Amino acid sequence: MRLSQLGEFGLIDLIRAATTRCEDPGRTPWREILLGIGDDAAAWQSGDRIQIATTDTLVQSVHFDLGIITWEELGWKVLAVNLSDVAAMGGIPNYALLSLALPAQLQVKDVSQFISSFANTAATFGVATVGGNVTTAPNTVITVTIIGTSKGKTVLERSTASSGDQIAVTGYIGASAAGLEMLSGNPVSDPRARDVLRQAHLRPMPRVEEGQILVEQGVRTAIDVSDGLVADLDHICESSKVNARINMEQVPVHPVVAAHFPNSQELALSGGEDYELVFTADKSTIARAKRALGCPVTVIGDITEEELPTRVLVVDSDGTIIPYKKKGWDHFKDAISHV
Amino acid sequence: MRLSQLGEFGLIDLIRAATTRCEDPGRTPWREILLGIGDDAAAWQSGDRIQIATTDTLVQSVHFDLGIITWEELGWKVLAVNLSDVAAMGGIPNYALLSLALPAQLQVKDVSQFISSFANTAATFGVATVGGNVTTAPNTVITVTIIGTSKGKTVLERSTASSGDQIAVTGYIGASAAGLEMLSGNPVSDPRARDVLRQAHLRPMPRVEEGQILVEQGVRTAIDVSDGLVADLDHICESSKVNARINMEQVPVHPVVAAHFPNSQELALSGGEDYELVFTADKSTIARAKRALGCPVTVIGDITEEELPTRVLVVDSDGTIIPYKKKGWDHFKDAISHV
Repeated sequence: MRLSQLGEFGLIDLIRAATTRCEDPGRTPWREILLGIGDDAAAWQSGDRIQIATTDTLVQSVHFDLGIITWEELGWKVLAVNLSDVAAMGGIPNYALLSLALPAQLQVKDVSQFISSFANTAATFGVATVGGNVTTAPNTVITVTIIGTSKGKTVLERSTASSGDQIAVTGYIGASAAGLEMLSGNPVSDPRARDVLRQAHLRPMPRVEEGQILVEQGVRTAIDVSDGLVADLDHICESSKVNARINMEQVPVHPVVAAHFPNSQELALSGGEDYELVFTADKSTIARAKRALGCPVTVIGDITEEELPTRVLVVDSDGTIIPYKKKGWDHFKDAISHV
Repeated sequence: MRLSQLGEFGLIDLIRAATTRCEDPGRTPWREILLGIGDDAAAWQSGDRIQIATTDTLVQSVHFDLGIITWEELGWKVLAVNLSDVAAMGGIPNYALLSLALPAQLQVKDVSQFISSFANTAATFGVATVGGNVTTAPNTVITVTIIGTSKGKTVLERSTASSGDQIAVTGYIGASAAGLEMLSGNPVSDPRARDVLRQAHLRPMPRVEEGQILVEQGVRTAIDVSDGLVADLDHICESSKVNARINMEQVPVHPVVAAHFPNSQELALSGGEDYELVFTADKSTIARAKRALGCPVTVIGDITEEELPTRVLVVDSDGTIIPYKKKGWDHFKDAISHV
């Protein structure tokens, strides 16, 4: 069997099984693990602090196209996708490690732009770049690791959603996927819309402060929208052993997407890479979090133990089921390229 | 200018300069940094602990050849090279993140072997695999990050060597580079020698416990032999602003290399990837460390502030200068392939 048949999630299960077999729960470091493989970041107790660590790799021609994204934008984006994982834990990002695998024929001025942008972005988010690795490679591959701490005594997780919770999302969604469509050759006439969409796809804003506010306000469950709204909510449901019902009319589709893309609904449900936070909590906690957050927050549905036709069910206001593509993205099964 | 002209160390300088420009020394996290870019690992104060983090990337056709190394060996090696960086700090490795960028056509059984080997190796060294990332890529690229803690109140560094220090090295050197020569088509007739050389290159043993013992015994300065004995000692000299004199006859060239390779001296001085520890300290500290360590330790020279013809000078017993290739390896300037 090949990886293309096993798929991304099959491979992750395989890694989880192999590492589980080797666990020694009574011993440090295993004893101190709070969250291992399968959440947005790992978390463990270290003395009086909770430590958080996450890593993400962007591959040329898979995650980005150097004909479209500038080196400056790439410096932002490789950090942003990692910061978003820390945000999804409600953590404080502190330190970054940058691993660069680069073709030797690259122009130094391009790589310099990337590095300056990376360093500036890191500092903007209060992150110190403390190390990394450089090597040559036939194809650019960039891996960023961020190590942080928890804001409080807990972290946001995927496995803590419970029946009766409301489901809420920060900001607006669908703009990153619409940006990808536009940049892949589906033109948008309005220049202001073009800017918004390009920005959404190439310079996404991770919700780092918002994640910390969620922890402070007593929210326990969150994920960031990287794979897609439905796919990421499905991760929460799978981990929490619950189901979710979303009302399509409440989904905050980005207005620019709604105005310019006939498939806006699909882009919002399955597009991914919005790096907004989806979180669940009881009604009063959601209301409190909404008041504390400085960004739009929309309740889009609720968590249930009811059996539903699919783990995540999307309906319109009269209860009609809206079909969607199940997976946002499978790295090994899907052949399409990201930008 | 292209990266091939700038070189690996030029690129590292560029990254260091960009991150230094963005530092905010009065603020967390910068205030807590003990060692940033330019040592084997980063180190910072976190509450009552010193945290250590390091990352290393292995690229197919650059660092390894899947026609030679088995997936099982690769699972060991990707961890070992990172553990060696933790060893060079005298640290305790605790947590690993594994980033896999893999072609979709790879066989699941091969990748499974890699993962089992990685998980077993990690557990052998008391390291819990807590997260990572999987993605498709045209060429296999594996990035491992290890996060650990310091054994004591300090870490081993590159910048603390001082005039009068003795220079010592653990174990024997040259066998990994000789193994690479053998595996690249320079046959060795003795099957026992073949095993030793293959093992040295493909399953190097990081000196994790030894690094911790060095810290306990009061050693302050160390590096692991990854680039090459001279190149790595040169890193210490550069950081510490001192020079080094090595006596070639004291260098513990691996006996199998001495017996089978006419260029054994060059392999030992410039070969690299031995993952032994080179450390410096005053005579009595070295003697104490030698008694405490459970492995061979050889004094090979001394640190001096004297001006020497080269920062690291290699001489034979009558003082004749022995020439060597300066750099062990430059990822962008050198075109040769590692195995």
